[in-house]
Amino acid sequence: MILQHLKKFQKISETKEGVTRLGLSDWEEEAHAAAASVFSRSRKIRRVQDQAGNSFIVNGEGKGPHVVMGSHLDTVPNGGWLDGALGVAAALSAMQRILKKHRNAPVAVAIWADEEGYRFGNGLWGSRMFAGLVKEDELTQLRDHDDMLLGYFLAERGLQKKPRRSRETGELVAKISYKPPIEVGVYAEAHIEQGRRLLDAGKRIGLVTHIAGIRRWRLESMGEMNHSGTTPMRERRDALVPISGMIGRLPQLVRGVEDGVITCGAMGVEPCVANVIPDRAWAVVEHRAPTERDQDEISRRLKELVATTGPRAPGVGLEMQSISSIRPTPMSEEVTGRLEEVCRKAGAESMRMVSMAGHDAMSVARVAPAGLFFIPSLKGISHRPDEDSRREDIKLAGDILYKWALAEVERVL
Amino acid sequence: MILQHLKKFQKISETKEGVTRLGLSDWEEEAHAAAASVFSRSRKIRRVQDQAGNSFIVNGEGKGPHVVMGSHLDTVPNGGWLDGALGVAAALSAMQRILKKHRNAPVAVAIWADEEGYRFGNGLWGSRMFAGLVKEDELTQLRDHDDMLLGYFLAERGLQKKPRRSRETGELVAKISYKPPIEVGVYAEAHIEQGRRLLDAGKRIGLVTHIAGIRRWRLESMGEMNHSGTTPMRERRDALVPISGMIGRLPQLVRGVEDGVITCGAMGVEPCVANVIPDRAWAVVEHRAPTERDQDEISRRLKELVATTGPRAPGVGLEMQSISSIRPTPMSEEVTGRLEEVCRKAGAESMRMVSMAGHDAMSVARVAPAGLFFIPSLKGISHRPDEDSRREDIKLAGDILYKWALAEVERVL
Repeated sequence: MILQHLKKFQKISETKEGVTRLGLSDWEEEAHAAAASVFSRSRKIRRVQDQAGNSFIVNGEGKGPHVVMGSHLDTVPNGGWLDGALGVAAALSAMQRILKKHRNAPVAVAIWADEEGYRFGNGLWGSRMFAGLVKEDELTQLRDHDDMLLGYFLAERGLQKKPRRSRETGELVAKISYKPPIEVGVYAEAHIEQGRRLLDAGKRIGLVTHIAGIRRWRLESMGEMNHSGTTPMRERRDALVPISGMIGRLPQLVRGVEDGVITCGAMGVEPCVANVIPDRAWAVVEHRAPTERDQDEISRRLKELVATTGPRAPGVGLEMQSISSIRPTPMSEEVTGRLEEVCRKAGAESMRMVSMAGHDAMSVARVAPAGLFFIPSLKGISHRPDEDSRREDIKLAGDILYKWALAEVERVL
Repeated sequence: MILQHLKKFQKISETKEGVTRLGLSDWEEEAHAAAASVFSRSRKIRRVQDQAGNSFIVNGEGKGPHVVMGSHLDTVPNGGWLDGALGVAAALSAMQRILKKHRNAPVAVAIWADEEGYRFGNGLWGSRMFAGLVKEDELTQLRDHDDMLLGYFLAERGLQKKPRRSRETGELVAKISYKPPIEVGVYAEAHIEQGRRLLDAGKRIGLVTHIAGIRRWRLESMGEMNHSGTTPMRERRDALVPISGMIGRLPQLVRGVEDGVITCGAMGVEPCVANVIPDRAWAVVEHRAPTERDQDEISRRLKELVATTGPRAPGVGLEMQSISSIRPTPMSEEVTGRLEEVCRKAGAESMRMVSMAGHDAMSVARVAPAGLFFIPSLKGISHRPDEDSRREDIKLAGDILYKWALAEVERVL
């Protein structure tokens, strides 16, 4: 069943260059609907949508608490067929199997919206809304590549009210309206590893004990537009040169930090013309590490680099603004232990590990006991069209999740 | 008259953020038509268009040689109202005045297409076509921001035939079809300085003796797309880091080179997502200097920087490809001397100078005696909405051009 579900999702918006199904897009909505349609013949199962764009496929009338499994169905541009979709497909097939045994099982599938945060550079959108972790500032500060404000975008999608200008301060103010539609009793998520540690260790299941923290910063450099020929070097206020020099030095900032990574994935320059000195350049810089102390250290080094690289020429400013900060998060020891037990009984070799990628389980862990486990990614790659896993590992993910959820359900029934 | 012409051009495509009238766009075509309409009541004056997108407003039936004045009507995005337009307006008003005196004067206005080269990163497009300086490779190699090939774009605009794939090599081949529609006997161009040397020296007219050479390079870095969290630093093939480090060091490359400038005005990264390690980054780098020897030295340093910054990680390549190279060009000593004489008689203080900006006169100088003169730019700025010059200097540009052209016409009549 799990492979059928995966193929169904893959067909939505797949091209020769992989799957492009951005968060909060019509394609994502279509995938959510396709997931819900798995149960369309049953009247007892409801699809509940919330003001974040999340979908919950819930058995029964009650509000819970439910045994919840889930993941996301959005992808990066030209992404793969398993990132996110695996966890949803595994959850759907597990729920189908459980309902065959226990028609009244308090079980639900959560499909979290916009996990990748592609468009606005923020991630875990839907699950953070669910856990109350989104700050209202986010809606009035984050903009997409076309300069569209997140708050306006959400209003256009009919999810949130439009930000308003405050009469007193004149600033844009957003008020988040959100009520979690279900109560999570316990949560587990299956995902691909997106790295090569499981392959290298020869294990089939990775039990995540901690998820690394993720901090994202927006750097913006302001200078003065001018002609590239007639403006002598000493009179320039070039916005691109300082920010570029800084990006070139980013890898140095994680030297000596165990499992620390730093990336500039997105940047741009304006007006982007060969013979015009740029007056604006921006970059999104992200760093991750398993401990808060290491995250603080990398942030400190980044601030120092900005301070020393930035305003060399008078009139050129380099600003650094926090986009999002997610603390390193421990998973529930109880859930992890039970998943480990399920693996042992199923004869699937597992190992405990840290996740360097953020996952929705990170947000859910703030409001309920949550667990997360991985299956190996072939070649360790992800966010690419050729992302793949062995078919038997995909099926194993469904089995482990099913067996875990069945035990949880039987504990409360 | 000159101010009326300028206002007319300004109205076409002006917004609050300046004038945006890109080369080879419908807006540029509208401006060419508006220029030609100045003479619409006269039957003797023809507008001749060529296969580059240039327009010539020609008096009489003969093919020449003509006394030609001209400049361009395209702008950079959010540019000013004088760059290019000044020279066309001055030429139109000078032609109007000459025809009042000599109905049969062999005089013409040239409006060169796409001088700025915004869209494809090449410049002086129309005048280079006129002078036979465009290489056919340009049509099959240059692409705009949307990856549209120059050759296809020209075919769409109905200017050139579509490039074809060679049966033997399988490569795209373009064949340029171009015949200059008029013969230039002598040429002069008025332009704003776009710098502050005239202001600083207290002079009203700058007589250009040489135009600095301009070389443009496209740098492209190829790496491997991957997840920004799960890919350890040592396993990354990040395309952005090396190219950024290089851009940060560009200013060092012109140290000690008199009047040498180097700029990266345009760059981009793909896929441009916060949590994806970029697999492609590109930049256009341009350098200028008044002598070919200095240009060679800067190019040598750039190649060295690319060789040492580039492929640090295995699997990351940095390629450097020439987009265009325009040699430093001397203006005609004869034309410059005559313009100087006109200034002296008009009581306008002039100085001789080097132009760091490229101008269409640079191309025309390859096929005919050509001169170029500047009026001061307020604050020395250009390519910006607030680009401006004193009204009396704008009028002076028209007067000097008129008096020069009148003398040239009377020499041959």
